[in-house]
Amino acid sequence: MITLVDKLIFVVIDGLGDRRCKSLFGKTPLEAATTPFLDFFAKNGKVGLVDVVDPSIPPTSETGILSLLGYDVLKIKISRGPLEALGVGIQLSDELAFRTDFATFRDGIIIDRRAGRIREGIKELEKAINERVILEDVNFVFKSTLAHRGVVIFYSEKFELSEYVSDTDPGKAGVPPKICKPLILGESEIRTAKAVNEFVRKSHLVLNFHKVNLKRKAKGLLEANYLLLRGAGIGLPKVRKLPEVYKKFWNCIAGSPLEKGIARLVGMNVVDIPEATGDVDTDLRAKVKALFDFFDEYDCFFLHIKGADEAGHDGNCELKKEMIEKIDGIFFSEIFSNVNLKKTILCVTADHATPCELMRHSSDPVPILICGGKVKKDEIDNFSERSCVKGGLGRLRGIDILGLLMRELGK
Amino acid sequence: MITLVDKLIFVVIDGLGDRRCKSLFGKTPLEAATTPFLDFFAKNGKVGLVDVVDPSIPPTSETGILSLLGYDVLKIKISRGPLEALGVGIQLSDELAFRTDFATFRDGIIIDRRAGRIREGIKELEKAINERVILEDVNFVFKSTLAHRGVVIFYSEKFELSEYVSDTDPGKAGVPPKICKPLILGESEIRTAKAVNEFVRKSHLVLNFHKVNLKRKAKGLLEANYLLLRGAGIGLPKVRKLPEVYKKFWNCIAGSPLEKGIARLVGMNVVDIPEATGDVDTDLRAKVKALFDFFDEYDCFFLHIKGADEAGHDGNCELKKEMIEKIDGIFFSEIFSNVNLKKTILCVTADHATPCELMRHSSDPVPILICGGKVKKDEIDNFSERSCVKGGLGRLRGIDILGLLMRELGK
Repeated sequence: MITLVDKLIFVVIDGLGDRRCKSLFGKTPLEAATTPFLDFFAKNGKVGLVDVVDPSIPPTSETGILSLLGYDVLKIKISRGPLEALGVGIQLSDELAFRTDFATFRDGIIIDRRAGRIREGIKELEKAINERVILEDVNFVFKSTLAHRGVVIFYSEKFELSEYVSDTDPGKAGVPPKICKPLILGESEIRTAKAVNEFVRKSHLVLNFHKVNLKRKAKGLLEANYLLLRGAGIGLPKVRKLPEVYKKFWNCIAGSPLEKGIARLVGMNVVDIPEATGDVDTDLRAKVKALFDFFDEYDCFFLHIKGADEAGHDGNCELKKEMIEKIDGIFFSEIFSNVNLKKTILCVTADHATPCELMRHSSDPVPILICGGKVKKDEIDNFSERSCVKGGLGRLRGIDILGLLMRELGK
Repeated sequence: MITLVDKLIFVVIDGLGDRRCKSLFGKTPLEAATTPFLDFFAKNGKVGLVDVVDPSIPPTSETGILSLLGYDVLKIKISRGPLEALGVGIQLSDELAFRTDFATFRDGIIIDRRAGRIREGIKELEKAINERVILEDVNFVFKSTLAHRGVVIFYSEKFELSEYVSDTDPGKAGVPPKICKPLILGESEIRTAKAVNEFVRKSHLVLNFHKVNLKRKAKGLLEANYLLLRGAGIGLPKVRKLPEVYKKFWNCIAGSPLEKGIARLVGMNVVDIPEATGDVDTDLRAKVKALFDFFDEYDCFFLHIKGADEAGHDGNCELKKEMIEKIDGIFFSEIFSNVNLKKTILCVTADHATPCELMRHSSDPVPILICGGKVKKDEIDNFSERSCVKGGLGRLRGIDILGLLMRELGK
C-alpha cells in the first residue's frame, strides 16, 4: 500500500527572522524561545535558510509572501491599496485605492502612526467619514479593516484618476504628515493629488471632534484623528493563478486584509475567522480550528501567523520570544497532535526578518523547515536562524520554495 | 436619544415561492408551513410581492440574486462559469470557465444529471481528472465544489479560447448529453469546442473506471462517470460595487459557489462556513452563527438559504413545507431572539419561485417582508404568497428592493 502525500500546510510566521539580542544573552528570539514542537518538526525534516526576495532587498509583507508563493516580485507591479481592498472583498476595476492608517496628529506632527493601535470605535469613525466627508470632484468610500488599518477607494466620473501620486504617510512618528503630490506633472495626477489632500483635510476635521476621539482623549488614549495614506494603485497585476499552475486548490487562513488580498490575487480561497480580539491566543486557536474545519476540502493550506513581527517592530526581544513560544505551544502543538505527517507536507518559514535591533524589515535570510511525506531528515534537531545555516536544504531563494514543496507533494 | 438604524439582514430563501399544492389541500408550501417567527416579522412589518426580474422572465439563481441587489440583469452579460470560479476563489482574467455537474451516463444516455447528488469521493475524482486527463492544445484545471457541482477552467498558450460555444448539459435526464458546438463559425470557437469535447470524453474514461465509481456501483448508487458543462464564460461583467454605491459594507453568508461568486462580484466579503454535511439543520445553525460572529464588523448581511429550492425541483410539496418549517424554527427563531429590531432592518424574500407542480423556476412573483427600524406595520399578520398580495409594499420589481432597504437603513 502506497501512502499518498496529498496535503500541504504552509505556515508563514510574519517577521519571524531576527538577529542576536543582547537581552537574550546573544540568542535570537527564535533561538531563545522554548519550541518543542517546531524542534520536533525540524528534527524529523530538513531545515535551511531563505533569501526571501534576494540577499539585498528587505521584503515588504506583499513582496515577501508573493516570493514565497513563487512569483517574481521584481517583475510585477504591486500596489498595496488594491491588495488591501481585495482583502476586504472589493475587487477594483478602474478605482484608485490606498492603504490607510488611523494616526494621532497634534500640533502639526504625527505623534503615533497607529493611533495607539486603536481597536474600539473604528466602525463609528468609518461611518462618520463616509457620511460627513464630501469631496468636490471625486467620490470615495472608506473602510476601516483591522485595528488602525483601513482602505480608501476613490472614483470619479469627472476625470481620470491616477495612481502616480505620493504617499502621505511620513513612515515615522515625530514629523509632519506628507502632502500628497503628483509624481508626474499630468492633469490626472495633479487633480488626484488635490482630491487626496482634500480627503485627508476634511476627514481630519470629522475625526478630530468625533465623540470616539473625545472619549479617548479623556481616558488618556491616543486619538485617531488623522488618516495616513500610502500604496496608491489602480487595478491588480495579472498573475497566473496557483490552481492553474499546479492543479492544487488552496485555502488561506489569515487575519489581515493584505494577506487575504494576496491570497485572492493568486487564486486561493480565503476563510474568514471571527475577528481576533487582539488576544494572540484566541487568534491562534481560531486559525488552527479553521485549518481542521476545512482540511478535507483543499489540497494546500496557507497560514499566516502574526505576532512576532509586531514585537520586532517594537524592538521587544523578550516579547518576540514569548510570541514565538505561544505560536509553538498553541498552534504547532495542535498540528503535532492532529496531522498525519505521512500524508502531509509541513513547511514553516517567514516572509521576512524583523530584527528587534533594527525595528524594521531586513533582507537577512530567514529560517525554513520542511517535514512530512517523503522528506528525508538532515542532522539538525532544532529550529533557529543559527541551526538552519547547516541544514540539509542549504540556502534557497524565496521564489523556489513553492516548487520544492510541490515536488514533495507529488511524491 | 435617537435610535440609529444601522444594520441590515437581507435573507434570500432559494426558490421559496410556489403555487397551490393538491397534496397540501390547495395551500402553497409556505402557506401550509407553521412559521411562527416569519409570521411575527410579517405582523410587525410590511409585506408584498416581487417580480424578481420581470413578470415574464423566470429568473436563474444568478439573475434573481443580482436583480434583488439592484443590478439590471437585462443589461449585464453574465456567464455562470466565471461566477462559479470566483465563488471558489479563482478570479479569472482571460481563461474560459464552465460550471460542471457530475452526472450518470449509461448506454449513451444521461440517467441522472446530478449523479445521485454524490457527496463522498468527489475530491478523489477531482484529483484523478486533474492528474490523468491530458488535452492536446489546451490546459485545464477542474475543481469539484459542493456535492455534484464543480467548475472547469481552460487556458491555452496555443490559441485564443472563445466563450461562444454551447453547453453539453441536455437540461434533463433520459436523453444523450449534447456535444459542445461553436456558436459562431470562427477558428477560436471551433478549436474551443473541440477541446471541450476532448475533455468530456477523456474525463469520462478516467471517471468510469475510477474506484470511487466502482464502489458506488457495487453499493447500488448512481456513478459519477460523466461531466456536464454549461455557462461558458471568459471574464466577469464590470459592475459598480455595492460599497461604492451605498457606502455600506456587506458580508455574505452562503454555501454555494455561485452565490459566493455573485457576492464577490458586487464587492461583498464572503464568509466560508465549514461545509454543510448535507444536513440542513447543521447548515442553518452554522449560518446564523456566522451572522452573529461577524455582526459588529459589517453594516449589511446577505444570507442565502438553500433547501426549499431543491424540494421544489424534486416536485415534493411536503418536503418543501418541512424545509420552510426548519428554516423558520432553526434560523429565524435565532434572529427573533438575538436581533434588536429597533436598530436592524430585516428583509426576507426569494430569488425566484420554484413551484412544485413545474419542478423548475418560474416567473411567478415571490413574497417579501420587511420589518425593523422605522418600518410601519401593515394589516397583514402572516407570511405567504396569498397574504402578501394585500401587503403594504404592494407589488415591486426586484431591482427596486435594495434601494428601498437602503432608504430604511438611512432612517
